[in-house]
Parts: sequence; C-alpha cells; structure tokens
Amino acid sequence: MSTKGKGTRAERELFHMFWETGSFIPVRAAGSGSTPIPNPDLIVGNGEKTFAIECKALKSGSKYFPKKEIDELKIFSERFGAEPWIGIRFDNEGWWFLDLNNLGKSKKDNFMVSLDIARKRGLRFEELIGKFKQKKII
Amino acid sequence: MSTKGKGTRAERELFHMFWETGSFIPVRAAGSGSTPIPNPDLIVGNGEKTFAIECKALKSGSKYFPKKEIDELKIFSERFGAEPWIGIRFDNEGWWFLDLNNLGKSKKDNFMVSLDIARKRGLRFEELIGKFKQKKII
Repeated sequence: MSTKGKGTRAERELFHMFWETGSFIPVRAAGSGSTPIPNPDLIVGNGEKTFAIECKALKSGSKYFPKKEIDELKIFSERFGAEPWIGIRFDNEGWWFLDLNNLGKSKKDNFMVSLDIARKRGLRFEELIGKFKQKKII
Repeated sequence: MSTKGKGTRAERELFHMFWETGSFIPVRAAGSGSTPIPNPDLIVGNGEKTFAIECKALKSGSKYFPKKEIDELKIFSERFGAEPWIGIRFDNEGWWFLDLNNLGKSKKDNFMVSLDIARKRGLRFEELIGKFKQKKII
C-alpha cells in the first residue's frame, strides 16, 4: 500500500475509534494539506476538550515532520481553540499521541518521532481521551 | 450548475469567508452525509465559539430539510460542544443563518426555510460572527 493510502486508512481508523468512544465526535477535514488554509487531519470534541490531530502511519523507524506542518497545526489550534496533537500509528504497535512539546528535534528546526520517543513520551489512545490517568509528561 | 455543485461552491465560499474574518478558522468535513457518523458541512471556531453549520444554496423560493438531517446536526453539535446553525445562500441575496429553533415547520415534522423566514428570523454573516450586535431572535 502506498504511504498516502496507509495514512488515509490510519486516519479513518482513528476517526472510527473516536466515534466509538461514545463521548467524542470526530470530523475529518476535506482537502487537509491541499488548501492554503491550515487544517489538521482530524478535529474531535466531546463538549469539554477539542483536539486537532495530525495523523501518520508507519511501519517502524521514525517519521520527520517539516517545521511548516507543525507551525500550521499550532496556528489552526490556537485560532480554533483546540489542543494540537500528533497521532502516530506504528505497525504491530498501534497508536501513540504526542504533545508538540514532546516531539524530537531534527536538523534545520524540523521535528521527528521515533518509536522510542513515542513509547517514552507519548500517550495511548485511552490516556488521550481521559479514560485512564495520564502518564506524567516528560 | 447542478444543485450539488452549487451547494459545494457555496460551502467553499463560506469556508473562505470565515477564514477571512481573521478570528474564526473553518474546517470542511470530508464525506459529510456519506458516512453513518453525523457530520456538519462546516465546523468553525474562534477559541470562544464553535459553530456546526449545514449549508444550502438556492436560487429563491424555499428549501426543505428532512427531520433526520436536523436531528443529526443536533446530535453532532451536542456531542462536539458546538452551536448548530443552518447557513442558507440565496442568489442575489447572499447568506442568512438560522438557529434551529427558527426554522419553519413543514409536513411530517420536517423543516423548511424560505427567503421570507430567513429575512424575518435569520442573522447575517456579520451578526453571526459577532461583529455587529445581534438582532433579537424571534
């Protein structure tokens, strides 16, 4: 499957996971990344919290995020009134969610997430949605 | 232009109008109406208010809304924590916005909006976004 197809499949999976919580409701943004107006992949809310989520899926290893993508997620989130999150799905490992302050740094002010960083600093889905007590964020 | 094409064009116009306010930021929902999960056409926020908007465009006359469409907009809005609105664009008249309580009633518990109802009970865009004092809602 292409990287893009894999990303779209993961995004749909996450959309349904939020719907199935029974408390959050998700929206997938049309044309995310294809208009000059910053939009996250998903926006979800439960009447108390609103999350703007940029989703990625990968087999293993690490994923780089251009500074521009992270800046746009911040701009969107500040203006909308949402918390910005990176959702990253590793094959055989499932979803991890990272606060922007917990991303790794790469060259030229870009960002990255590895499985190691996700495990150390990330939240699981159930933690993100508040079903379990959140781990201390490093 | 087909009714659907006209609706999509109007939805994009409204999306850009919210972006250009400099305070609200809009998201167009992907596949609105094509998944079993209720999603409005647009969701917009400014950090204080969140609006879930179902958009329609018509030449003149009136527009019927099946009860199911209105019920789904309510379900979405309650769960997300958004205000539900109907945005309706008449040719040569522009946009009007109606609170669900201000829609007209039609047969079989369905709803409708006519230009006359829109003018009497609706808000203009600038009123909706709070740039001008809102009219008394009837």
